[in-house]
Amino acid sequence: MKTVVQKYGGTSVGSIERIQAVADRVSTLRATGAAVVTVVSAMSGETNRLIGLAKELAPQPTLREMDVLLSTGEQVSASLLAVALNHRGVRARSFLGHQIRIDTDSCFGRARIRNIDVAGLRKSLDAGEVAVVAGFQGVDPEANITTLGRGGSDTSAVAVAAALQADSCEILTDVDGVYTTDPRICPEARKLDRISYDEMLELASLGAKVLQIRSVEAAKRFDVPVCVRTSFSDEPGTWVVREEEGMEDVVVSGVALDRDQAKITVRGVPDKPGLASKLLGPMASAGIVVDMIIQNASEAGDTDMTFTVPQADYERALPMLEAVAQEIGAGGVTADANVVKVSVVGLGMRSHAGVAARMFDVLATEGINIQMISTSEIKISVVLEAKYGELAVRVLHRALVEEAL
Amino acid sequence: MKTVVQKYGGTSVGSIERIQAVADRVSTLRATGAAVVTVVSAMSGETNRLIGLAKELAPQPTLREMDVLLSTGEQVSASLLAVALNHRGVRARSFLGHQIRIDTDSCFGRARIRNIDVAGLRKSLDAGEVAVVAGFQGVDPEANITTLGRGGSDTSAVAVAAALQADSCEILTDVDGVYTTDPRICPEARKLDRISYDEMLELASLGAKVLQIRSVEAAKRFDVPVCVRTSFSDEPGTWVVREEEGMEDVVVSGVALDRDQAKITVRGVPDKPGLASKLLGPMASAGIVVDMIIQNASEAGDTDMTFTVPQADYERALPMLEAVAQEIGAGGVTADANVVKVSVVGLGMRSHAGVAARMFDVLATEGINIQMISTSEIKISVVLEAKYGELAVRVLHRALVEEAL
Repeated sequence: MKTVVQKYGGTSVGSIERIQAVADRVSTLRATGAAVVTVVSAMSGETNRLIGLAKELAPQPTLREMDVLLSTGEQVSASLLAVALNHRGVRARSFLGHQIRIDTDSCFGRARIRNIDVAGLRKSLDAGEVAVVAGFQGVDPEANITTLGRGGSDTSAVAVAAALQADSCEILTDVDGVYTTDPRICPEARKLDRISYDEMLELASLGAKVLQIRSVEAAKRFDVPVCVRTSFSDEPGTWVVREEEGMEDVVVSGVALDRDQAKITVRGVPDKPGLASKLLGPMASAGIVVDMIIQNASEAGDTDMTFTVPQADYERALPMLEAVAQEIGAGGVTADANVVKVSVVGLGMRSHAGVAARMFDVLATEGINIQMISTSEIKISVVLEAKYGELAVRVLHRALVEEAL
Repeated sequence: MKTVVQKYGGTSVGSIERIQAVADRVSTLRATGAAVVTVVSAMSGETNRLIGLAKELAPQPTLREMDVLLSTGEQVSASLLAVALNHRGVRARSFLGHQIRIDTDSCFGRARIRNIDVAGLRKSLDAGEVAVVAGFQGVDPEANITTLGRGGSDTSAVAVAAALQADSCEILTDVDGVYTTDPRICPEARKLDRISYDEMLELASLGAKVLQIRSVEAAKRFDVPVCVRTSFSDEPGTWVVREEEGMEDVVVSGVALDRDQAKITVRGVPDKPGLASKLLGPMASAGIVVDMIIQNASEAGDTDMTFTVPQADYERALPMLEAVAQEIGAGGVTADANVVKVSVVGLGMRSHAGVAARMFDVLATEGINIQMISTSEIKISVVLEAKYGELAVRVLHRALVEEAL
């Protein structure tokens, strides 16, 4: 008997009509004889409504209590879907984080799953029931309710699929798969049939918000084949899978645009050990995620350090860096929020030389100046002036994806 | 250190503003040094909203899933109140049914509490926290979520108070206490300072919807002093307590009107053993609660049996009784939904003879015909034509409560 885990996002269960449609879809799958686990998000809008209530009471609500509050969203959709399935004669049972149970650490609001005890789930599946799991939630060692962070239901689904050794994990959402780039920017964008975990990880971290990055990490670690597809039709979607032979033949799988970037440069940093950590330390303590870090020592014995941070953290980061710059005797701080990051990702880069050269060549031809460069084994990212972002995506997609076909 | 359990009903936590007011009130109590447990209901309207969603999916939603769904209402108000308290610098922690834990049987929708393990609650109180308990919910031996039925938060509060051996249990609601009768019917109605558990039980079962009847039973069993008071002011309210010396001096504590009655008579029932249970059996199976039962054997060897049932069950009960009547060869069935029940309740009836006589006399003086009579040790109930209900309450209140003072 095949075991399938399906995750339905907030839009897919966003109304009574949508829940009916999901129940129909699950019924059809169950009728094939498959053992079915559905993981559901909160109805779209519900999480924000609950956050709004709490914020009216306290600008910074207690994290533990926020998790108690927000977990109700998934509890409501799980029970409603179970009601809809039972009404169709498809026996179903809802499971909450503490019932499965999904053990996590105690980091409220962004907990990590440590272990899943699927004995209860398996018993339910063996009895022929559809198990409807409230996504996004777990329970810590003291029985406190925890949540896994925005998009955490993807991670719930992959983790449950791994624990059950399910045959596949389908992420049903409002997009129909993973594209070579954003179709709204580049009409030639093509839906991928398959993509490797590593490529998906790079794309997820580059602003292609199809899957929560942790869910891809979990899928890779436990070797769970994940299919991203739409819940609004029967389109096949994109499989995110282990690297297979032939995958490297495609040099570039995708081109991603990340507008959520701001650049900060500390000039004339004295070239002494420990100063980099002195610059980065305060930002780390403040929870600011620094993305790219570039350092270039000059012959004069000092160095310029450039960072990128999310737009939302830009105004908090700037005074921190200015204070540290003064303290360590650096030359000064310059900043620019008017930038974007464009990245090309592909397993083929490992074996095909010259992708970087071709990329820079294409950008130069268009007169686009590159401000920063950062590379990994399967990715090249460049920071550009914001106005060139969409143009860069289009010309890189043409040169590296379309013409390489 | 005094331990106080306070229960806030749906109206008391019905909006962000009301939750703020409750948080202020709890803060003030906590500042006196008392250990405070607050039990909260769902925000008013929320339970009905959730039931509405489920009914759109299925006319008869799965009972187990309804409890998963409805328990979110109390989960939301508990976490929000904890957020509001923490924001005031009053440390608070929410507790759900499975966290406390409140063990119940598996009767979804109307579960009964079997045991409460208050170790976690006590630890929280000892640490100086306000424990905010989600009312209405528990957990069965298989870790399924259960609910205690409408008004179940009162029972949660009394049960938690009993388990903690709390000094008192305050039920904060939108009425300011227990009255000698409904002030809307009789302006001379007076708020009682104290009333015994037994009197409150009779009044609760007679339609004075101040406290859930099970909560009064629990308070009596565990000897928990309960105070009913309004959350909108500092009025002292009514204490529901163990019977004390002097309580019998007040002959009649209250006069209650129950409009939710319908009368059904089966005429000419053959006077044979077992026929009463044959008549009542089908209604019990259908979950119809029969209130008054009166049987009068005639000399002719047959008998008339008269029942009262809630108005909502009247149309279901009638065909059942007609079928049984035919089967057992009874004379026929007559029914009347146009009736009310008026009751007088008081510990003093045990020692003061003549209350019944005075009651019937007062009604006769007003030309009110009595259709049925039923008595208990501390209560006399009569069934009357509906139009006489309010008049009967007023004249009985004057004769038995006001003039007896």
